[in-house]
Amino acid sequence: MAKQDRAIRTRRNILLAAAKVFEEHGYQAATISEILTSAGVTKGALYFHFKSKEELALGVLDAQDSQFAVPDRPCKLQELVDVVMLHAHRLQSDPMVRAGVRLAMDQTATGLDRTGPFLRWVELSRELLEKAQAQGELLPHVVPARTSEVFVGSFAGVQSMSQAFSNYQDLMARASELLRHLLPTVAQPYVTASLHLSASRGAEVYQETQRLVEQRPPQHEEAAAVG
Amino acid sequence: MAKQDRAIRTRRNILLAAAKVFEEHGYQAATISEILTSAGVTKGALYFHFKSKEELALGVLDAQDSQFAVPDRPCKLQELVDVVMLHAHRLQSDPMVRAGVRLAMDQTATGLDRTGPFLRWVELSRELLEKAQAQGELLPHVVPARTSEVFVGSFAGVQSMSQAFSNYQDLMARASELLRHLLPTVAQPYVTASLHLSASRGAEVYQETQRLVEQRPPQHEEAAAVG
Repeated sequence: MAKQDRAIRTRRNILLAAAKVFEEHGYQAATISEILTSAGVTKGALYFHFKSKEELALGVLDAQDSQFAVPDRPCKLQELVDVVMLHAHRLQSDPMVRAGVRLAMDQTATGLDRTGPFLRWVELSRELLEKAQAQGELLPHVVPARTSEVFVGSFAGVQSMSQAFSNYQDLMARASELLRHLLPTVAQPYVTASLHLSASRGAEVYQETQRLVEQRPPQHEEAAAVG
Repeated sequence: MAKQDRAIRTRRNILLAAAKVFEEHGYQAATISEILTSAGVTKGALYFHFKSKEELALGVLDAQDSQFAVPDRPCKLQELVDVVMLHAHRLQSDPMVRAGVRLAMDQTATGLDRTGPFLRWVELSRELLEKAQAQGELLPHVVPARTSEVFVGSFAGVQSMSQAFSNYQDLMARASELLRHLLPTVAQPYVTASLHLSASRGAEVYQETQRLVEQRPPQHEEAAAVG
């Protein structure tokens, strides 16, 4: 068990080092030897976990959406809003999330399949939109499969613009503005009227998920880390 | 005059070569010597036009939005739609436009001010939204300065997602879907009902601008190229 813990921690350290190197140099210019130096592990340890630069990049791409789940909400559109705003909040503060997003947006990363995070976000959004639809929250014309693509694509651009202009300082305001422009086309007016869409929503949800993590019994946390 | 023509052509050739190299390797990994080889010009010729890699990148960033203007439309929201759809169409076909957009989205391009194209697109959108507002096309709550930021940011992400999934093959459908999600929040319903938002709109507007270019007397074209 202790051995497994150490392996998990080593893997995480390597991914964090890889995240930093990818964020700084982009996928193409990044080298495994630089990641090795930054992680402070042996070549053997690195290759035990990751066979190639591509596997390292895919590991970083995967890590952005694996933790912190938003708790179930009675209103599924609010849950979708909370997922988006929590992700925006984490982009401001978590280097792994930031590196994952930058890799996904790196149009020069030839040979790297960058569709993974887009697909997972699209699937998550589509599921929530379908639940919202089943509960009568959506306007009748909405096709969840299409709307989820628009949500994910437009958020990707808004975060990129925020990074270019303010290194994510204005991201919460931009994300809130985007949602205010998209949701009235999708939600029943009485649902739109009930949504919390303000720029402070991300921090609120983050604190809520932190409290939930602290309340979890320790064995659950370990299972989550392995899974 | 002929000398000036040659200089314009050389500058354009260098920018096209730079665009290709930036598109392939990203800003950081690109080198001036590679751009020299690809352009087939002397070092002196290159440095006559561009003092540094940064100037080359800024030249490519500028080139994406300098040509092909959409003609005045009586409905200013249609003009905005046409600007967006024409840009999407050119992204599919024009390597210079594509390289400019990739550079603007290159989050690893440290030291390069990537805000230029975003700012120009925001300004263009804001102007058209303000004209639309003056004509009574917008819903009363709309703030053109905010909506233009949402339009530009969300389009940037949708194009990036399209590049990752289909190398721009599905861009027209994605752009059309984005506009269908954003415009009902912004436009008076009778204006929304009148808009051409289909995926074929970009090609139609492109053909229209091509016809206008062909009809222009030659001296105008030259002035446009110099300016």
